[in-house]
Amino acid sequence: MKVDGKPTRTIWLESDGHTVAAIDQRRLPHEFVVVPLTTSDAAADAIRSMLVRGAPLIGATAAYGVALAMREDASDAGLDHAYAKLIATRPTAINLKWALDDMCGALRPLPAEARVAAAYARAAAIAEDDVAINQSIGRHGLTLIEAARAAKKPGERVNVLTHCNAGWLATVDWGTATAPIYQAFDAGVNIHVWVDETRPRNQGASLTAWELGHHGVPHTVIPDNTGGHLMQHGMVDLCIVGTDRVTASGDVCNKIGTYLKALAARDNNVPFYVALPSPTIDFTIDDGVKEIPIEQRDAAEVTDMTGRTKDGRIETVRVVPQGSAVANYGFDVTPSRLVTGLITERGVLLPERAALAAAFPERVERRAEALRA
Amino acid sequence: MKVDGKPTRTIWLESDGHTVAAIDQRRLPHEFVVVPLTTSDAAADAIRSMLVRGAPLIGATAAYGVALAMREDASDAGLDHAYAKLIATRPTAINLKWALDDMCGALRPLPAEARVAAAYARAAAIAEDDVAINQSIGRHGLTLIEAARAAKKPGERVNVLTHCNAGWLATVDWGTATAPIYQAFDAGVNIHVWVDETRPRNQGASLTAWELGHHGVPHTVIPDNTGGHLMQHGMVDLCIVGTDRVTASGDVCNKIGTYLKALAARDNNVPFYVALPSPTIDFTIDDGVKEIPIEQRDAAEVTDMTGRTKDGRIETVRVVPQGSAVANYGFDVTPSRLVTGLITERGVLLPERAALAAAFPERVERRAEALRA
Repeated sequence: MKVDGKPTRTIWLESDGHTVAAIDQRRLPHEFVVVPLTTSDAAADAIRSMLVRGAPLIGATAAYGVALAMREDASDAGLDHAYAKLIATRPTAINLKWALDDMCGALRPLPAEARVAAAYARAAAIAEDDVAINQSIGRHGLTLIEAARAAKKPGERVNVLTHCNAGWLATVDWGTATAPIYQAFDAGVNIHVWVDETRPRNQGASLTAWELGHHGVPHTVIPDNTGGHLMQHGMVDLCIVGTDRVTASGDVCNKIGTYLKALAARDNNVPFYVALPSPTIDFTIDDGVKEIPIEQRDAAEVTDMTGRTKDGRIETVRVVPQGSAVANYGFDVTPSRLVTGLITERGVLLPERAALAAAFPERVERRAEALRA
Repeated sequence: MKVDGKPTRTIWLESDGHTVAAIDQRRLPHEFVVVPLTTSDAAADAIRSMLVRGAPLIGATAAYGVALAMREDASDAGLDHAYAKLIATRPTAINLKWALDDMCGALRPLPAEARVAAAYARAAAIAEDDVAINQSIGRHGLTLIEAARAAKKPGERVNVLTHCNAGWLATVDWGTATAPIYQAFDAGVNIHVWVDETRPRNQGASLTAWELGHHGVPHTVIPDNTGGHLMQHGMVDLCIVGTDRVTASGDVCNKIGTYLKALAARDNNVPFYVALPSPTIDFTIDDGVKEIPIEQRDAAEVTDMTGRTKDGRIETVRVVPQGSAVANYGFDVTPSRLVTGLITERGVLLPERAALAAAFPERVERRAEALRA
């Protein structure tokens, strides 16, 4: 998507053919800084330090990290070392393991002298696959936005509410929840996005607002408390959020607070959609509320806020009294009964076991094979 | 309630018999500062600048402001001047007008030389009335907390979730939503409070957490996004919130985000209570969602956060990108169908026209008289 008018991805190969460039997302929205990654250590650091974040982008960065490692040592030992180093950066990121397995599977059969070129090609393919999946999500989601527009008076804007950042910054390009929004905007639809601030890490206010603003999409940042009021007053036509994990029966695990918006959407007959690439579906679990463990994160994310002072310094301030305990649950689970549809690269699906299994039979078969083995 | 172990109110008369003391709430939770108010101008400034806030406390401060004004000029002209000055400080605060009308009604028939003593006595009575009402709310609410305790295993704590600050800091003492909590705690109930941060002004994190902490009540600050997850997992036994206005049919206008918690409570069979002094009931309106205009407030409340830096300075930082629009709705309306009960000074009432009218027949009669006139 665009930054200062220029089409930009979160990660790309520089024209020298080996340097990898990535946006330093820790410095957004206050500063736009591109960091060159020239070693596998730099790639590992970028993932570990959250210079890059978002499951698809972590996968692409790890893939390029293997390519950089092959320039350093293309032997089998070098490949093993790269895998071990990169897998340790964010142990719970599922795309990280998937990308590393894919890279190693492709490279190991090759002679060492062929591995550098093959690694860069494979990393580029992983990045392009992510872009293609998100574009498909965008195409399918666009039909939902167009349906919402058709239900309105001519000239009225379509209002989408989103939570957290399932935007292009979390992927290589387009994003998941934002892909339909960008496609609608680029197609000339009069669209406006309500951006939940998304406490405690403020990814909505800091990342989603930044990327929508740079691409030119009209948007308004709101406190997380606001969405219910907007829906009560007909000011939201549809919700589109991302997800970290969808169960086989369509329960949606996403950033904490998603469930509250789904409840408000249901109470006000606002359609509630979840956009996702199909690897996000976990066919091994069913009841998201009972089965998905919810990560508890550092209290400092709640107690401390970082921003820019009037005179331009970046400062961190504490906003909770000393001595008060703090709880910081990272995610919640929205039961499938509150989800209108899942926007995947193969279409908009009902959040039901049969619909998911029919759309992704190869995933279900693989699961069945694994159970038999 | 207690501050540093010492019973404290938000406003009191000093031992010199004329200086009024108030906690400077703008400096909480970072600093506890008591400000002496020795002139009616100082009292007016205290209300205007939000040194004091919360409808009952604003009323008591205005009453003491009239007493201070009588020391300056106890003539009829002095009384008119004091009224005009104080009513202009927060034009929409209903308790402000009520307290000033009450004070002027009591003082005007008196000779000027009797007005100073009468004004201080009347202001003290207004403050004591607030304390008595809140104690009654506390007594009635305590029965609900005890019922929740009775439903639990011995030794298990009762978990209450609250939103915003309907605490003693918003009143003269006890608070409304917090009165049952303080009474339960003082009675030895094993109680714990989930404190919603309450963006954008953070009154939960900054005021409710501070006052519960100083009184010794176990509590945990949570982002506003968290309550739904807690209720899904049985970690909330009841919700108690305050309100700015309740309609004749029991719809509840309160701080933005209250509606989302009421939806989550309903979805998880958690009782949702609203604590209020009966003047908060507005018998002139019925449908809160349709009839209550929702104030939009300054965007800076959302974009800027104030807190304490590591080295002890108070700083304000901007957390939203420049150029992003911001919406800041101050309140939302929770339909009565989501409210389990209204905790008033006359008992816990169903949120229904008949129940409210039966409990406060004099209010309904006054309304009927006004309509006939």
